[in-house]
Amino acid sequence: MKSKLLLALLAASLATTVTAQVKPEDAIKWRQSAYTTMGWSMARIKANVEGTYNKDDVIKAANVIQAIANSGMGALYLPGTDKGTGWEPTRVKPELFTNAEGVGKVAMAFNKEANEMAKVAATGDAAAVKAQMGKLGGTCKGCHDDFKAKK
Amino acid sequence: MKSKLLLALLAASLATTVTAQVKPEDAIKWRQSAYTTMGWSMARIKANVEGTYNKDDVIKAANVIQAIANSGMGALYLPGTDKGTGWEPTRVKPELFTNAEGVGKVAMAFNKEANEMAKVAATGDAAAVKAQMGKLGGTCKGCHDDFKAKK
Repeated sequence: MKSKLLLALLAASLATTVTAQVKPEDAIKWRQSAYTTMGWSMARIKANVEGTYNKDDVIKAANVIQAIANSGMGALYLPGTDKGTGWEPTRVKPELFTNAEGVGKVAMAFNKEANEMAKVAATGDAAAVKAQMGKLGGTCKGCHDDFKAKK
Repeated sequence: MKSKLLLALLAASLATTVTAQVKPEDAIKWRQSAYTTMGWSMARIKANVEGTYNKDDVIKAANVIQAIANSGMGALYLPGTDKGTGWEPTRVKPELFTNAEGVGKVAMAFNKEANEMAKVAATGDAAAVKAQMGKLGGTCKGCHDDFKAKK
């Protein structure tokens, strides 16, 4: 039920973006940029839990991840962008465009943990952030395993 | 006074990041990604004000810009990253590393308008969003004119 709703939402955002005539190479570059920006933010959180913990630094990083996770960037997986080059050739697997249920599952898991990370970061509890980083990182890996080709 | 405070904050974030031993090529790639993610979000807002307006779409895009604007990404301008390659060779001008007062000025203007954009987006007032998009875009351009080399 939930994944049907998500798919409907994805389809709706997709329609909006298609209308706006986004170039495939821009869509690929934008999603690569958004993931890399989240990667930077994860690296910041990791540096904080493994080194000197700075509450504000972690909040800022978590807010970036949350905003991107909730941005509806699924709309950037336009038809025809299973191949193509943004900053570099896309590594998306064809399954992302065919396994709608699987995509819905990993997308919802990621969103849930990204929203939770922002909440946990706001408390300033370093141990809780470390634990949540593990959960959030697990949802990144889950999607990469299924939908992103290895280098 | 305000720019002195900002510089102190920038210096503090810089110190944090240096401690975490960020590689120069990562710092350059991360800042290129963050700007490109904001560029995507600006394009979404533009498509909404010029086409069919979708309040939620604009809120999501504005939230991404706001989160990145407040992320302290100035810390990614590490010493030695005036040259170097992330996704592509950096186009930062050497002035960014020497004109602290000028950088503080454009950074504060951008932050102010990015925060305002998130507020305006939440109202769903398309005309106000269009006006704010102009102000926000002006602060992007202001920084590019002074601190980013043309292609």
